[in-house]
Amino acid sequence: MTRPAVVALGGGHGLAASLGALRHLTDQLTAVVTVADDGGSSGRLRRELGVLPPGDLRMALAALCDDGEWGSTWRDVLQHRFASQGELHHHSVGNLLIVALWELLGDTVGGLDWVGRLLGARGRVLPMSSVPLMIEADVVGLDPDDVTAVRTVRGQSEVAVTAGRVTSVRLVPDAPPACEEAVAAVRSADWVVLGPGSWFTSVMPHLLVPDLADALCTTSAKTLITLNLVDEKETGGFSGADLLDAVREHQPDLRADVVLADPSMVADRRHLEDAAARLGASLAVFSVAQTGRAGVHDPLRLAAAYRDVLR
Amino acid sequence: MTRPAVVALGGGHGLAASLGALRHLTDQLTAVVTVADDGGSSGRLRRELGVLPPGDLRMALAALCDDGEWGSTWRDVLQHRFASQGELHHHSVGNLLIVALWELLGDTVGGLDWVGRLLGARGRVLPMSSVPLMIEADVVGLDPDDVTAVRTVRGQSEVAVTAGRVTSVRLVPDAPPACEEAVAAVRSADWVVLGPGSWFTSVMPHLLVPDLADALCTTSAKTLITLNLVDEKETGGFSGADLLDAVREHQPDLRADVVLADPSMVADRRHLEDAAARLGASLAVFSVAQTGRAGVHDPLRLAAAYRDVLR
Repeated sequence: MTRPAVVALGGGHGLAASLGALRHLTDQLTAVVTVADDGGSSGRLRRELGVLPPGDLRMALAALCDDGEWGSTWRDVLQHRFASQGELHHHSVGNLLIVALWELLGDTVGGLDWVGRLLGARGRVLPMSSVPLMIEADVVGLDPDDVTAVRTVRGQSEVAVTAGRVTSVRLVPDAPPACEEAVAAVRSADWVVLGPGSWFTSVMPHLLVPDLADALCTTSAKTLITLNLVDEKETGGFSGADLLDAVREHQPDLRADVVLADPSMVADRRHLEDAAARLGASLAVFSVAQTGRAGVHDPLRLAAAYRDVLR
Repeated sequence: MTRPAVVALGGGHGLAASLGALRHLTDQLTAVVTVADDGGSSGRLRRELGVLPPGDLRMALAALCDDGEWGSTWRDVLQHRFASQGELHHHSVGNLLIVALWELLGDTVGGLDWVGRLLGARGRVLPMSSVPLMIEADVVGLDPDDVTAVRTVRGQSEVAVTAGRVTSVRLVPDAPPACEEAVAAVRSADWVVLGPGSWFTSVMPHLLVPDLADALCTTSAKTLITLNLVDEKETGGFSGADLLDAVREHQPDLRADVVLADPSMVADRRHLEDAAARLGASLAVFSVAQTGRAGVHDPLRLAAAYRDVLR
């Protein structure tokens, strides 16, 4: 078959799962990654050095890594975290390496391309924006005296673990510059894949970067939305239809072609089909969860599902 | 010509200069590097993570790096230091990468070989001992009331900048295990090159690791001692003969074949020739300093001198 040009958008483990699947299907693969993380090693690096948070970019690169001894050794080095009682504790080596390349080259995309070459990555990893972003969320359910009260929760790491129910997210700054190469990749793609991932902190942000959102809404590429599995922490209690409605609320102009869902997310098939139809999409149901690990996508099952959808 | 197998022993900038010269002459090149540094990024890493100080090893690897775009880019990344107000300030990226490989592989030599492969290094870099070492020095001249009083100064970083005159150094622990691969390299070499470098903290320590010293004293390889240039900080005021006498005092059984000196170190030629003769060596005088940078070896002049000596 002709290898389709695929752009996968997201962040964190969800995007890594999607890339781990797509790399079996094409080498014309571009990952577009959120840059709003403010927790852990990435959060410390952006505060100390004023750089983009590198963690989700590193994870995407690792997911695209070549399987041979060379690639997999460097992947393991980049994913390695120091453990100590001191200043390096929990810093990821790959985060430090990416930041060093950025400082040395003065070129965000060029630095990521060098790490991709080191790993023999099948594809390219790009940030969604050229500047570090913050996430602000409207959250209900945090006030025991008023369950409808809307509170603002600030910071990706706080939003991801809020005890309330996120209703929407915003970016700060609110109209950040897109990464030009990411916009171009979306415009020239055959397929765009949005999700899975922490819905409000890793998936919705792509719809809030104006030039990237415009490209997503107007590209001639077909668009696939991959839903989360049931027990994603940030959206526990959300149905598949709720996730799709969140897409429409964050970017009313976005149209999709296919919504991919695991059977575990299809409690009410008609309800989910209707939500997909409101985006212009049909529903494709495939078993894509790992055996024995609820809530985690299986890369090979997901690859099989993507293959059948993209065909 | 047949490429000679050369082992260069030392540490820091002196060893890097020697390697930068020798790499023009052979690819059968092994660097054996001190592991007693307790200052800067290396000192922080050995205290925080309990590892060998990686800095001198990193510098040796950088000196052996391939000149192409790939090797030189990764060399620059590995030599890059973070600059901030925070916890990463002054940490070298290469130090962090080497330590990560050690932690991941559980193999000191294997980890260094991986960095060598990354850099396309012409040769191999080995630690002189498999355990981190401390340096203790006897120093005179620190007591203004008694200029002959001998004080003990502890730690390489303290010894290197002492205001007194170092008379001898010891290792703690005092009979550390040698790196087996380093011992084997010395035994099978055609040439062994000792120095230049901080004489007491980077060169003499190799004579104090029992199995390594035994190999140096009994190898069939020819031995070349490269003297420092005049204004090496640690031995300012030492003559070339003083440096050679220090070698005999630290390891009476060591024999040498050639002593290489820059004209700036040959104020009294007969005196220096006599000191060389006490080691069994002849004196070879070549201009090896950089033009306009006193005290720094010029890699190409040093390469030319090494070529003429090794021929």
